[in-house]
Amino acid sequence: MTSADDPRLADFARLREVELRKSLEAEHGLFIAEGEKVIRRALATGYPPRALMLTERRLPAFADLDVPKYVVPEEVAEAVTGFAVHRGALASMSRLPLPAVPALLAPARRILILEDLVDHGNVGAIFRCAAALGVDAVILSPRCADPLYRRAVKVSMGAVFAIPYARMTNWYAGLEEVREAGFTLLALTPNRAAEPIDAVGMGERAALMLGSEGDGLSSRWLREADRAVRIPMSERAMAMGVDSLNVVAAAAIACHSLVAGED
Amino acid sequence: MTSADDPRLADFARLREVELRKSLEAEHGLFIAEGEKVIRRALATGYPPRALMLTERRLPAFADLDVPKYVVPEEVAEAVTGFAVHRGALASMSRLPLPAVPALLAPARRILILEDLVDHGNVGAIFRCAAALGVDAVILSPRCADPLYRRAVKVSMGAVFAIPYARMTNWYAGLEEVREAGFTLLALTPNRAAEPIDAVGMGERAALMLGSEGDGLSSRWLREADRAVRIPMSERAMAMGVDSLNVVAAAAIACHSLVAGED
Ligand SMILES: C[S@@+](CC[C@H](N)C(=O)[O-])C[C@H]1O[C@@H](n2cnc3c(N)ncnc32)[C@H](O)[C@@H]1O
Ligand SMILES: C[S@@+](CC[C@H](N)C(=O)[O-])C[C@H]1O[C@@H](n2cnc3c(N)ncnc32)[C@H](O)[C@@H]1O
Repeated sequence: MTSADDPRLADFARLREVELRKSLEAEHGLFIAEGEKVIRRALATGYPPRALMLTERRLPAFADLDVPKYVVPEEVAEAVTGFAVHRGALASMSRLPLPAVPALLAPARRILILEDLVDHGNVGAIFRCAAALGVDAVILSPRCADPLYRRAVKVSMGAVFAIPYARMTNWYAGLEEVREAGFTLLALTPNRAAEPIDAVGMGERAALMLGSEGDGLSSRWLREADRAVRIPMSERAMAMGVDSLNVVAAAAIACHSLVAGED
Repeated sequence: MTSADDPRLADFARLREVELRKSLEAEHGLFIAEGEKVIRRALATGYPPRALMLTERRLPAFADLDVPKYVVPEEVAEAVTGFAVHRGALASMSRLPLPAVPALLAPARRILILEDLVDHGNVGAIFRCAAALGVDAVILSPRCADPLYRRAVKVSMGAVFAIPYARMTNWYAGLEEVREAGFTLLALTPNRAAEPIDAVGMGERAALMLGSEGDGLSSRWLREADRAVRIPMSERAMAMGVDSLNVVAAAAIACHSLVAGED
């Protein structure tokens, strides 16, 4: 194919325009996976492929896949997507229905709950940590960024396919549903009044709650948690204005404690 | 000012062009700080300001500073820098000579050594973790990305000013110099043969070594380390191809262990 306007390439159009992509992906129930490794992981998880857009050189690697394959020169790929497609292969895939929260919780012991994280990179990075460290599942607040958005998939290195997740339908009632399933709700906060994380026993079933980069957890969710937990920070750094950890760093430390506490 | 070509704005030109900026900043010994909070932290650390470029609205906030202030409309700021300057204030500041490695090590007990991390965002994020968690100092390999590069400063939230750092002049002899100062060298690696981090006593003086996103630590540095240390990962995730943590997540967990082990 030689024209960037070919309607068959519509799944792959303007990948850097966040708002446009959000509505296009929702409407068609699709998402984009980038690079052979990540595409293979998505396939292994059971996501049905819709189409591939790739450079000539990458064609043989996907010989086994029975979907439309659009072969394009690099310039056309760039004109369609809006950026240099380094890894030479993009797949559009169909989304699958997410599990309901109770079904997700039933077999789980260690979970994360993310409140309103808007940055796709942070969401992807947290999935990579959670998967690598053995967390069983992730629950997203209604407004949390989409883990299948291209940047999240990419930053996660495909870990968004390695760990099951669900989305709360109701921000007000959502935490109560987790507690009723037998989980202790631990709110992670830099607040000095919270308990130091290494002193907190994780118990039989534990849910770690993480808040957004700007505001942190909402006061409602902080009130609803069973305990507030902090990662101790340096007094000297706080005096210099470094008063919290990035949410990914906090998630990494907390997941490690969560899982190290397992028997 | 109304023209983006005004030579007095040269310090602020084309901030998104990494290679161009690297040589320009090296040549003139300058760096860029963005937003009032970060600018104030850089000033508090003693970096001499060269000039400010800001929108009219931000002028009063910097009334106390006696440097050239270039007031520009938003469009001009964007034309000069190449992006929308959200926080309305940029400062160019003079770099200061970095301390030599022995001077940096003398008062330190807990340090990080970064080998060839090329991503400025990762370097900035690691500085934020290290500062927040009370690490005393950071040593960079000769090819490691510059912590004062704009993106690193920004991602660090100014923490690059809160923690002292130095750059090794010699990759071959660099580790030996740290060991001679009495530090145990701990190489962080996902390799299964390494010791689990929670079982490793940090001793009187400890240096944690971190490697780059693609290759990890070089085999030479792995050989030279006193011990290899790993953060245990989930077997299930490894089977699904999630076989390492992002270097920032690994740094966060390791810094927390390093400092929690303090007496
Ligand atoms: C950048 S922080 C938010 C800072 C916000 N000003 C606050 O006070 O919560 C983003 C999230 O990371 C987690 N976090 C950051 N630093 C933490 C710490 N020292 N202990 C526990 N959680 C932390 C919290 O879940 C927080 O909501
Ligand atoms: C993405 S990893 C590099 C992966 C590379 N393939 C390797 O085998 O080292 C980047 C750096 O993070 C650190 N790291 C990542 N996962 C780790 C783990 N599970 N234990 C200890 N360090 C880890 C190491 O310092 C590594 O060099």
